[in-house]
Amino acid sequence: MENNQPVVIAVDAMGGDHAPDSVIAGIKLALDNNKADHIDVKYLIFGDEEKVMPLIKKYGISSDYYSFVHTTGYIASDEKPSVAVRTGRDSSLWKAIESVKHNEASAIVSSGNTGALMALSKIILGTMPGIHRPALASIMPNRIGEHVMLDLGANTECDTRNLVEFAVMGEAYARAVLKREKPSIGILNIGSEEIKGREELREAAQILRESDYASQFKGFVESDDLGKGSVDVFVSDGFSGNIALKAVEGTARLMIGLLKDFIKQSFLAKLGAVFFIPVMKAMKKKMNPGNYNGAMLVGLKGISIKSHGGADAYGFSRALRVAYNAVQNDLRGYIATQIEKIKLLTDTEQKSDK
Amino acid sequence: MENNQPVVIAVDAMGGDHAPDSVIAGIKLALDNNKADHIDVKYLIFGDEEKVMPLIKKYGISSDYYSFVHTTGYIASDEKPSVAVRTGRDSSLWKAIESVKHNEASAIVSSGNTGALMALSKIILGTMPGIHRPALASIMPNRIGEHVMLDLGANTECDTRNLVEFAVMGEAYARAVLKREKPSIGILNIGSEEIKGREELREAAQILRESDYASQFKGFVESDDLGKGSVDVFVSDGFSGNIALKAVEGTARLMIGLLKDFIKQSFLAKLGAVFFIPVMKAMKKKMNPGNYNGAMLVGLKGISIKSHGGADAYGFSRALRVAYNAVQNDLRGYIATQIEKIKLLTDTEQKSDK
Repeated sequence: MENNQPVVIAVDAMGGDHAPDSVIAGIKLALDNNKADHIDVKYLIFGDEEKVMPLIKKYGISSDYYSFVHTTGYIASDEKPSVAVRTGRDSSLWKAIESVKHNEASAIVSSGNTGALMALSKIILGTMPGIHRPALASIMPNRIGEHVMLDLGANTECDTRNLVEFAVMGEAYARAVLKREKPSIGILNIGSEEIKGREELREAAQILRESDYASQFKGFVESDDLGKGSVDVFVSDGFSGNIALKAVEGTARLMIGLLKDFIKQSFLAKLGAVFFIPVMKAMKKKMNPGNYNGAMLVGLKGISIKSHGGADAYGFSRALRVAYNAVQNDLRGYIATQIEKIKLLTDTEQKSDK
Repeated sequence: MENNQPVVIAVDAMGGDHAPDSVIAGIKLALDNNKADHIDVKYLIFGDEEKVMPLIKKYGISSDYYSFVHTTGYIASDEKPSVAVRTGRDSSLWKAIESVKHNEASAIVSSGNTGALMALSKIILGTMPGIHRPALASIMPNRIGEHVMLDLGANTECDTRNLVEFAVMGEAYARAVLKREKPSIGILNIGSEEIKGREELREAAQILRESDYASQFKGFVESDDLGKGSVDVFVSDGFSGNIALKAVEGTARLMIGLLKDFIKQSFLAKLGAVFFIPVMKAMKKKMNPGNYNGAMLVGLKGISIKSHGGADAYGFSRALRVAYNAVQNDLRGYIATQIEKIKLLTDTEQKSDK
């Protein structure tokens, strides 16, 4: 990391609703930001030459900062992952992921088909030793700052061991990307007095309480803690995590929509519209999903980043920065050093199963 | 319903963070609103005479509109439901629920211990024939109006049959409380391209597609549809429903909090604070959980309403109105007429299991 080689990030130029334009525009924006932040990154771009090269010229991206690989295939956003696995060998996504496996790049970023990205990343890169299932992790905004949440949808159902591994990987992610020194961890649960959640949640909590993470583990949290930022790492199965994530995103949109509706309806507010502008801007900026774009599939032998399908240039540039941070802070190495701990934890768990 | 007898609603005066004051103040407010709306309701109040009677006097509630039953016991908000079931026989909550069973009241409302309310309601009132598990249902706000969501936490895990029954009961609830003629129904799921949700969700969707509800059933919805109000009835297991509900509530609070923060930070906005006041008020009113207070445990042989533990007088008065609407619109009778359909549905399901 300390040598003068640039970090190389592989980019699937063909994935996403506005690809390849938004992807190449995102690279351009990222390069401007990299320069401002004295960050040295080179992008390894995979895509259809006829479509991508004109855009690279249009956005004036210097050949110092990219290499291009022509690919013929393309995975549609509605393609089944199983089909992508069978037939996607020539696609930009496949080739981009493969470049990470072959150490030509340190990370891959795509706005394409989520299921295909997850399936191909697992197959091509492989899961880290000691990790049973990778999870989708992302940064989310809260009142006091930001937190990490995982799994956001990679695994519909999870057992105790998966949840414990998610906690360990999320902790590493919070260290690497949010730069927290001792991130606090909570397991997402429901607060019904009758039933304190599902069995696997109680078991995972028990294991964490008795682990090296004991001082960081804050027990169960509820989904209204997301807005408060009660912990740095929210751990859940992929179904609940996805439900919570989209409820937060939907409610943020609802509130901004209502704000606009009420301003329109209020005579006084319309008069005072000029006063609202900075507040509306600040609100939108804080809650803009583009800011938090770049969910990482953690637990693989390579860094694989999912950008939102509808990401614009700004959103895509943020996902590229997540990839850079994960590489630069050696997220994979950090998770690797935690693996023995995970093994110990799962041994404990297996014992308690007997 | 068409005679001149008032609707009698049983009230547990001892449950809730601010009880009994907020409860009695809520009754006072409800009576004022009842008068304005030409609604005839009498409250059957259960509680400790020494604590409650001075408040009834303080708020000047006429004896025309209430009866009082002195009770000695009380179920603490942190009491385990199993303990409440064993030892709560003398409590205000138990006695209030029992009054519904004995037809002295048509509904019971309590701000007390949720788990105890659910457990005692199930035991004392019993589940309706044809319903396997009651569910907690409530109204929630969205951009275009309101919708019903269930289960909000009564059942941590649900099978296909439970979900189908929730759909039928939610539909009835939307008719009775939201006055929708043909409520649309959606099953909450996640949108991952890889896995289209859990098996029981797919099975429940299939059953609804082939049922009398086919034209009302809109398939799967995601939790960002909650803010949009994409359907009138959102169906989910109690774990996911609780996660979604609290994520919505937490994000609404987050957004109002951020709005305040940004107004404080913005010089222009501070200058224009007077212009914000009507907008902030409108936002708060729209998203105020008090407006939507009163979750109903649907599927029982009696109407049992859970008011939020922290409900103030206004919130409690809203829960009392939910109880009235459920009685007046014969929610129980409507669900009962749907039971045969439910039975047919579950028969179909059982066949498909073979």
